[in-house]
Amino acid sequence: MSQPRGPLSQLRRGHEELVLGLLRKHGPLSRGELGKHCGLSRTTLYDILAELVADGAVVTATSQDTPRGRGRPAETLTLNPDAGQAIGIDFARRGLHVAAVNLAHEVIGAASEPHDADLPWEQRVELAGRLVGSLTGIGSGAALRLGALEAVGVGVVGPVGGQVGGQAQDEDEDAPHPVQVLLRERFGVPVLLDNNTRLAALGEAIWGAAAGDQDVLYLRLSHGVGGGLVVGGSLHRGAYGMSGEFGHITVEPGGARCDCGGTGCLETVASIRAVLDAYRAAGGRAADVPELVKAVRSGEETALGLLSGVGARIGETLAAVCNAIGPSVIVIGGELVETGAALSEPIERALHEHVIPVSRHRVSLRSATLGEVAGALGGIALVLHESPLLSRYPAGPDLAEDLSMTPSRHP
Amino acid sequence: MSQPRGPLSQLRRGHEELVLGLLRKHGPLSRGELGKHCGLSRTTLYDILAELVADGAVVTATSQDTPRGRGRPAETLTLNPDAGQAIGIDFARRGLHVAAVNLAHEVIGAASEPHDADLPWEQRVELAGRLVGSLTGIGSGAALRLGALEAVGVGVVGPVGGQVGGQAQDEDEDAPHPVQVLLRERFGVPVLLDNNTRLAALGEAIWGAAAGDQDVLYLRLSHGVGGGLVVGGSLHRGAYGMSGEFGHITVEPGGARCDCGGTGCLETVASIRAVLDAYRAAGGRAADVPELVKAVRSGEETALGLLSGVGARIGETLAAVCNAIGPSVIVIGGELVETGAALSEPIERALHEHVIPVSRHRVSLRSATLGEVAGALGGIALVLHESPLLSRYPAGPDLAEDLSMTPSRHP
Repeated sequence: MSQPRGPLSQLRRGHEELVLGLLRKHGPLSRGELGKHCGLSRTTLYDILAELVADGAVVTATSQDTPRGRGRPAETLTLNPDAGQAIGIDFARRGLHVAAVNLAHEVIGAASEPHDADLPWEQRVELAGRLVGSLTGIGSGAALRLGALEAVGVGVVGPVGGQVGGQAQDEDEDAPHPVQVLLRERFGVPVLLDNNTRLAALGEAIWGAAAGDQDVLYLRLSHGVGGGLVVGGSLHRGAYGMSGEFGHITVEPGGARCDCGGTGCLETVASIRAVLDAYRAAGGRAADVPELVKAVRSGEETALGLLSGVGARIGETLAAVCNAIGPSVIVIGGELVETGAALSEPIERALHEHVIPVSRHRVSLRSATLGEVAGALGGIALVLHESPLLSRYPAGPDLAEDLSMTPSRHP
Repeated sequence: MSQPRGPLSQLRRGHEELVLGLLRKHGPLSRGELGKHCGLSRTTLYDILAELVADGAVVTATSQDTPRGRGRPAETLTLNPDAGQAIGIDFARRGLHVAAVNLAHEVIGAASEPHDADLPWEQRVELAGRLVGSLTGIGSGAALRLGALEAVGVGVVGPVGGQVGGQAQDEDEDAPHPVQVLLRERFGVPVLLDNNTRLAALGEAIWGAAAGDQDVLYLRLSHGVGGGLVVGGSLHRGAYGMSGEFGHITVEPGGARCDCGGTGCLETVASIRAVLDAYRAAGGRAADVPELVKAVRSGEETALGLLSGVGARIGETLAAVCNAIGPSVIVIGGELVETGAALSEPIERALHEHVIPVSRHRVSLRSATLGEVAGALGGIALVLHESPLLSRYPAGPDLAEDLSMTPSRHP
């Protein structure tokens, strides 16, 4: 699926991007209008347009505005809303999520598939390739235009900080992540990497529950408990890429051992496994979250009592972080959110009780809206790198060297 | 002390700033070199230089480099290291702190004076005027060049968020702070305002213990417990100006009532009053921090035991915030830091115990170095607005309208 990347093809890509950018900005344009805006020669422009139409990236329409009987109706060109441009992949612990946006930067499709936690990277990348392929056919006559891929934005579990675009910046982490090597081989484009929960925060802050907010705290309650921060209008990575580790804030001194090496972390109380274990220890019966949700919906006391306690711990932790950072919106995502008010109400009560009183009515609690593809969408945001939320995000050296992200680099 | 601010005086100020900026950037320059850099006419430049020399802002020196016997030695012009340019004032709860920097943006003097917590604003501003006056005479033949004041940067207690330069941006806080009105009357220049603890954080991150760091957590242990954050290289205010409220993170659920309206806040355990009260309740005798410090230095068990417990609470809180934000440096300031290792060691132990293990050796704990004038210095930083840490800080409308901050606005 890779394509030639020599100087001529890069020049052509630059021209294509220029034309696509104009159509993204202005909407439908006639060939004449495009010519005025882009400054390309008539021959070059018509060549580029023929190719973009043949590829399905651009479609033609006859303008409705032309007065009858006054010559031929003008033909306008517009972005094909079904043509894909960028993909994001979230390599979560036990499943894979893929999303694609079209040339107008609208989400055109997403796909997910669960897998075992120990599936090797080679097979995960195979699966990713198949899921990306499955996005072909979404909408009417859609086709993910893989030839137009600029980069793949990827989320992985665990801390990512020193690495951008496969270039290590931290002496402790000087090898690229295996998934970067494998995906680069497969797609022939740069692979941008970040922590998948931080990417989910970015996704929610661009397309989801906190779209348009400048100070956002995102908490994910899943197999792990983690999160991400948008701080003063920028995605925050923290020194060494270690921000958003809300799951490892101590909530029970001397409590249960946590995978991180600490004890009594929020994750030992509020992860899926912790919640299900505690529920079963209290006499409840549920093998997974959907069964727990069923018990909650039936009004079962054991389930409600347990979630009340878990919610209180979560709310106390959120209050501490709120006092430190001062967000206007808290977004809560992850599978456990499906338990609804049984969890969100005790969270909100504890948050309001423990946050500094002057902030009580200034911070709002919302459920995530993007579901399990939030991380994949955040990966797309990294690729497009157009959100002001990314203004302080390091631009990878790969992007500077390999990509024709902006037409101005190819006059 | 105010000066005419008509268009002509502003034009002249622009020229002055241009010349001062060139000397700040290049160091000593001859008149000819200055002429080449600044683009002003010879007559205008010589006029400006004559005035700056008469004011004491610029001093002349004879270059050492001129070969003997080859004409007159060249005269160079240089900034007077003793001439003041900007002042910052910290209106703390029980005292006033003032600092001044020279034209090279080096700190040239600072003064403090304690006062009662209920001293009216009029008298505080009077006192501020006197302290600013006292900075005259610092160093050899120094004189604070009040005529060159561009603005006064001021720290006050409590949340400040919606207000910049006297212009309210928050519907709840639409009146300027009384100190802004009074200071503007007195000095005739705009008054930039922020929370004084956040300004102390800024001061430490520019001139103090964390100079050069991009992700800094500053905690102040004083009559109140508060702090500030530098996040990804920017001073962070938070939505509604409510960041850095570390003192109101709950550390003892159901604990003592706090001034904020909550209970069991860190401030109820780690403020000066809380520590002295607990010390006396445990049988210790100390009326103030210096007496407590004396007890600590004599190795008194009661004092050491108490601080060990307080330090543990502080360290746990810092660990929670660290996990959320991922700073590389924690700076601790305020009077209680004078207790030394008796407090800092238990803080560090608890921090290391509760922070996520992978961050343990990545975050360093430091004592503040600027002392009680950190907030006043942060106020100066607001006025100069030259630190990259302020790149996301809102520029006040006053600055845009009144000030000739950049020569380019006066061609």
